[in-house]
Amino acid sequence: MRFTSQTSSDGVTEQFFTLDEIPGVLWTPEGACGTRPLILLGHGGGQHKMAPGTVSRARRYAAEGFAVVAIDAPNHGDRPKDEEFGRVAAEMRAGMAAGKNPGALVAGMHSHLAGQAVADWQAVLTAVQRLDQVGVGPVGYCGMSMGCGLGIPLIAAEPRIRAAVLGLLGVHGLAEDAARITVPVEFVVQWDDHMVPRDQSLALFDALASAEKTLHANPGKHGDVPSFEVDSSLQFFARHLS
Amino acid sequence: MRFTSQTSSDGVTEQFFTLDEIPGVLWTPEGACGTRPLILLGHGGGQHKMAPGTVSRARRYAAEGFAVVAIDAPNHGDRPKDEEFGRVAAEMRAGMAAGKNPGALVAGMHSHLAGQAVADWQAVLTAVQRLDQVGVGPVGYCGMSMGCGLGIPLIAAEPRIRAAVLGLLGVHGLAEDAARITVPVEFVVQWDDHMVPRDQSLALFDALASAEKTLHANPGKHGDVPSFEVDSSLQFFARHLS
Repeated sequence: MRFTSQTSSDGVTEQFFTLDEIPGVLWTPEGACGTRPLILLGHGGGQHKMAPGTVSRARRYAAEGFAVVAIDAPNHGDRPKDEEFGRVAAEMRAGMAAGKNPGALVAGMHSHLAGQAVADWQAVLTAVQRLDQVGVGPVGYCGMSMGCGLGIPLIAAEPRIRAAVLGLLGVHGLAEDAARITVPVEFVVQWDDHMVPRDQSLALFDALASAEKTLHANPGKHGDVPSFEVDSSLQFFARHLS
Repeated sequence: MRFTSQTSSDGVTEQFFTLDEIPGVLWTPEGACGTRPLILLGHGGGQHKMAPGTVSRARRYAAEGFAVVAIDAPNHGDRPKDEEFGRVAAEMRAGMAAGKNPGALVAGMHSHLAGQAVADWQAVLTAVQRLDQVGVGPVGYCGMSMGCGLGIPLIAAEPRIRAAVLGLLGVHGLAEDAARITVPVEFVVQWDDHMVPRDQSLALFDALASAEKTLHANPGKHGDVPSFEVDSSLQFFARHLS
């Protein structure tokens, strides 16, 4: 793990790093030392580790004492794009333009990325927890949309993750992994999502095997999650990781 | 308004009162003086102002600085039961035993009580806001199940109420009043409610005209709302009334 820059502002330290081929960012409270809960932050499709929604959420969590890490998903951000990804992405766009089922198209894209994404997160989690200011504390995952599509296989495979905030995605291709998830989940739905049909969202919530799962639905489209849901997710993580 | 008793414990003062024929309880922070936000707490069917869930919620809100008032609904708690109520209640029970639509039966009961309940709450609100330790501050309403069924006509009629926590009820008989509600609402649904079909709950959420409304759904039956929803409602009221 190689750190390439470090800046601090508003009580939060932001460090860019690379781990093998994976570019990432770590946020911690300024001057942090000792073990603390860690939140893995998965960005949305076509976005990257420094997307504004990811950064503001990360800084909010870090200001409350959490360590937070985001990485570029495979074929996103600063990572090279492979030929196969280009083909899958072009197929997805063409399918959507032709009015095909967007749930199936998006699931195809996520399943192309998931194997690598899960391995990346597992390596980053191990490396980050070796740092003095993070340590081996409880771990949460937060990701919506593609961050949910790559997060569900990760959480199903990774016993170190103890709580998750997910949402903005339907059940297509995820039912089996969702049925292996038993940790507490806060699941966010946009009631008028133009990209994810409501019944498909509710079916993904239903598919989670977690005894404690809570669904938060708000009016508005895919990208319009109200800011109070960030506060709510903070309460959720504080309840389960602190 | 006549106070009949006053006790304080754990930083909260509890005062029993009667206003005309209406028995009620007021909770305030111990030693409170000056204007503060007020929450009206409507109990469930067959319950009363001192039902355990009502009292614990009231004390939680008051400990955070709110004034909270609960009253016995018409024909509930310490209030006399009229003949007509006995007839409606017997009809409801017989209909349920015969497998009739519970939504319609419950709505019939609520509509029998709503006119009086709305007038009671309006009188209590006016009287309580005349007290030094309450004053004319922002007002919220919290009620589930019958507390929602009587709360929706109240909020539709009462411009002093600026935010509400509702839920555990379906749309039957309430669509018109719900469509007149425009204040922020947090709406609680039990995902496996044996008394309220899920689609009827979601239809009541949909019927609210509020631009800001947020749905919280949790696994479990009618009475199994998890305790973290009380914390969440506190955040909601703090956001809208403070």
